[in-house]
Amino acid sequence: MSESPVPHEPPIYRRIADGLRSRIMAGELRDGDRLPGENALMAEHDIARATARQALAVLINEGLAVPKRGSGVYVRLFKPIRRHGSRRLSREQWGQGRAIWDADTRGRPFTVDEVEVTRENATEDVAAVLESTEVWVRRRRYSVDTRPVQLATSYFPAGLVEGSAITQADTGPGGVYARLSDLGLPPAHFTEEVRARMPRPREAGLLDLPGGTPVIEVCRTAYTSGGLPVELNEMVLDSAAYVLQYDFDA
Amino acid sequence: MSESPVPHEPPIYRRIADGLRSRIMAGELRDGDRLPGENALMAEHDIARATARQALAVLINEGLAVPKRGSGVYVRLFKPIRRHGSRRLSREQWGQGRAIWDADTRGRPFTVDEVEVTRENATEDVAAVLESTEVWVRRRRYSVDTRPVQLATSYFPAGLVEGSAITQADTGPGGVYARLSDLGLPPAHFTEEVRARMPRPREAGLLDLPGGTPVIEVCRTAYTSGGLPVELNEMVLDSAAYVLQYDFDA
Repeated sequence: MSESPVPHEPPIYRRIADGLRSRIMAGELRDGDRLPGENALMAEHDIARATARQALAVLINEGLAVPKRGSGVYVRLFKPIRRHGSRRLSREQWGQGRAIWDADTRGRPFTVDEVEVTRENATEDVAAVLESTEVWVRRRRYSVDTRPVQLATSYFPAGLVEGSAITQADTGPGGVYARLSDLGLPPAHFTEEVRARMPRPREAGLLDLPGGTPVIEVCRTAYTSGGLPVELNEMVLDSAAYVLQYDFDA
Repeated sequence: MSESPVPHEPPIYRRIADGLRSRIMAGELRDGDRLPGENALMAEHDIARATARQALAVLINEGLAVPKRGSGVYVRLFKPIRRHGSRRLSREQWGQGRAIWDADTRGRPFTVDEVEVTRENATEDVAAVLESTEVWVRRRRYSVDTRPVQLATSYFPAGLVEGSAITQADTGPGGVYARLSDLGLPPAHFTEEVRARMPRPREAGLLDLPGGTPVIEVCRTAYTSGGLPVELNEMVLDSAAYVLQYDFDA
């Protein structure tokens, strides 16, 4: 399509958006920079406010910019996290004391906060998957480049993990999978279910999602080689921050 | 939480929604049935219109009902399609003349329409993946239980598939993968990239999506055992109709 002759000039708002996009791509406007405001665009291009607004809306819709209430529109460049379904959970990863999360972020700074570790009665759904009515629950939030990108809630059958570091805020090197391994329950098989939906208000708040951004929900169950379910992890991902990759053979 | 004593009655709109939900779950109200309208709910429960509207909104938000403009709110029960990432693309599936799609729908009636087969210049992105500037493109829409659920666009390097049934609307038993196999290019490895986003207007129209429903985008590349890319398939899925499942080992 880009090869065909252009019969008409694109509309002015689109040409302005193209110009701003080029400046972003060239690195002249950088992540976090404020874009020219409506008044500046109106003066510079001799256009109406609605046209200036349209130009900025193009970049917002493309995910290249975000409006901040009452303060303008800002460049938002965020390299999506490539979450590698099958490779990240390899035994080499957690077997050597590395967090699974390291595989996703490849050295980008990440933080974990809002950590909550509690013992609870399982909901019906969780009890059905884990074959246990009592569970230890680990809730936390992950951020990359200071941006919150994922909420995760892991459930463990209480009878299996009681007294282990899995019930502590700090699980030690290799995380919960290394600890399950210490308990003689190393995860061997994983099933991931992937869905997309709009966020619930609490999720939108914790992930700081702009309106109209869906979330990806990943429910992963980890099983031992004997088929015993040892963890259910419900993850809620900012869809603008993630690409999920899965590799498999015919 | 469900075990704790209830200190207050739930609000009236919620009790009305609970009653309607029970009737749906009991099979008394069935897929496609019209729910009682605002006027009927107002008369039956002696409530204001806003309250009746709230009750219906609960079921719409839960995905159990859909509003149709000017005609009321209808029950929408649709068992999600379980799309099995790794198993559905096994050689046994397409090697025996079965469509991959059969594995997803497990006998539920499905149709393919809006089929378009064209020869095109590849966009830069497609050319980069397929290492080819000329491509055969297959576009189609899948529906299950008469509901459109997926748009798919497959690209093939033109030089590899020229003259084969892949360039025809009807590709024959086993579909395009069986034909690639006939050409000595059976797919051996697959990479899937999964994203979620809001639909573009054309997608929302073709998939008949109610407002606020995101889509799941799956980009799959198929490679021969020698690593030659033979197909790029860009799929857009109604997120309310799908669960994607991936199984793998540690």
